[in-house]
Amino acid sequence: EILAAIEVALADGPLKGRRVLVTSGPTHEPIDPVRYIANRSSGAQGTAIAEALRDLGAEVVFVTGPADAPRPTGVEVIEVETAREMRAAVLAALPVEAAVFAAAVADWRMAAENGSKIKKQAGKLPTLEFAENPDILAEVSQMSEGRPELVVGFAAETDDVLANATAKRARKGCDWIVANDVSPATGIMGGSENAVVLISEDGAEEWPRMGKRAVAAQLAERIAVALGG
Amino acid sequence: EILAAIEVALADGPLKGRRVLVTSGPTHEPIDPVRYIANRSSGAQGTAIAEALRDLGAEVVFVTGPADAPRPTGVEVIEVETAREMRAAVLAALPVEAAVFAAAVADWRMAAENGSKIKKQAGKLPTLEFAENPDILAEVSQMSEGRPELVVGFAAETDDVLANATAKRARKGCDWIVANDVSPATGIMGGSENAVVLISEDGAEEWPRMGKRAVAAQLAERIAVALGG
Repeated sequence: EILAAIEVALADGPLKGRRVLVTSGPTHEPIDPVRYIANRSSGAQGTAIAEALRDLGAEVVFVTGPADAPRPTGVEVIEVETAREMRAAVLAALPVEAAVFAAAVADWRMAAENGSKIKKQAGKLPTLEFAENPDILAEVSQMSEGRPELVVGFAAETDDVLANATAKRARKGCDWIVANDVSPATGIMGGSENAVVLISEDGAEEWPRMGKRAVAAQLAERIAVALGG
Repeated sequence: EILAAIEVALADGPLKGRRVLVTSGPTHEPIDPVRYIANRSSGAQGTAIAEALRDLGAEVVFVTGPADAPRPTGVEVIEVETAREMRAAVLAALPVEAAVFAAAVADWRMAAENGSKIKKQAGKLPTLEFAENPDILAEVSQMSEGRPELVVGFAAETDDVLANATAKRARKGCDWIVANDVSPATGIMGGSENAVVLISEDGAEEWPRMGKRAVAAQLAERIAVALGG
């Protein structure tokens, strides 16, 4: 960790002095004190992006849900559990010049969290009522004041990846969408490789399948160019 | 691992030659290809019990859900994800002389798993329909043939621990219930200590709060006595 800190202090890349935000990992949404809804994001891609931005000299704020991936060193790490906690941490981290929303934020939470464990009762099934979680990507993309110069969203899709991701970019108002196919057959969710399509106002650019670190390095370079670094 | 294997080969304790089963960890119940329902069981207590039984010379089959705790060495490890997979692994592991069901098995799964990621739609919340999972503890406790000599269940409660656990023992038909209070305030779920009550036909016996390894050692000794080891 000390070595990593020294490396960062010495890093003199194109993003030196630029403050960037990366979100990563899943969120967990409590059902009751022992149960929760989760998703299969390992945090590997978000962590690799934070490291790649750090290596280009950026000052990185890393907001992460309860992810399996080890935390990156040489960055400011903020741990959260739920989507609402992630939103609060993101807003507190602003202003930044670029924000990369790589976290797999739960779309829904329980409408009311049970303070006690839901008991199993013979012949009775529980009914869970949902409420929509805050849409952090849309909120930051559409800020009228203090919006990051570059906002990058992620789209994890299992069907019609390109169409869904292109529509998502327009709907959220972000600058880029990094789209990928997380169908179980691809082995991407939880795996070490990724195959992404970068969607911007210039259209869709398909990147070859490569390691998550390579995807991160290429994305960080593109962010540096976009910020005029 | 080699050292652990040697230790096991040399172990000449009261459970030498006895085959026992331990289940551990949470189960994950898929909602769609990326989302699932989980629970906060770390697998620490189940892992410690498997190790303690191994140290008394037992031949241990360890069936574990996706737990954070490192797997025990010197035992047969079978990894599962869902309650249905755990049931199949448990039945395949029989016959055993004692079965300790320390896993936090999900009571419910989705009635129908979605093959594609559920999409967020404006103004629409998803409705999840549940089905009851197999009750592995009750099924094994009530086997008319090949029932383990000793069946131990766990009860993780947040309210009325003693009453709920005593009722659970009668309902399931197991010999012992190891009950504990997993209210968030206790710090037990995910922590290193446990405070349990052992419920048997002789009544309830409250153990002092101690480390999970100490609870495991004491439980293993009691199992050895019960099996006449």
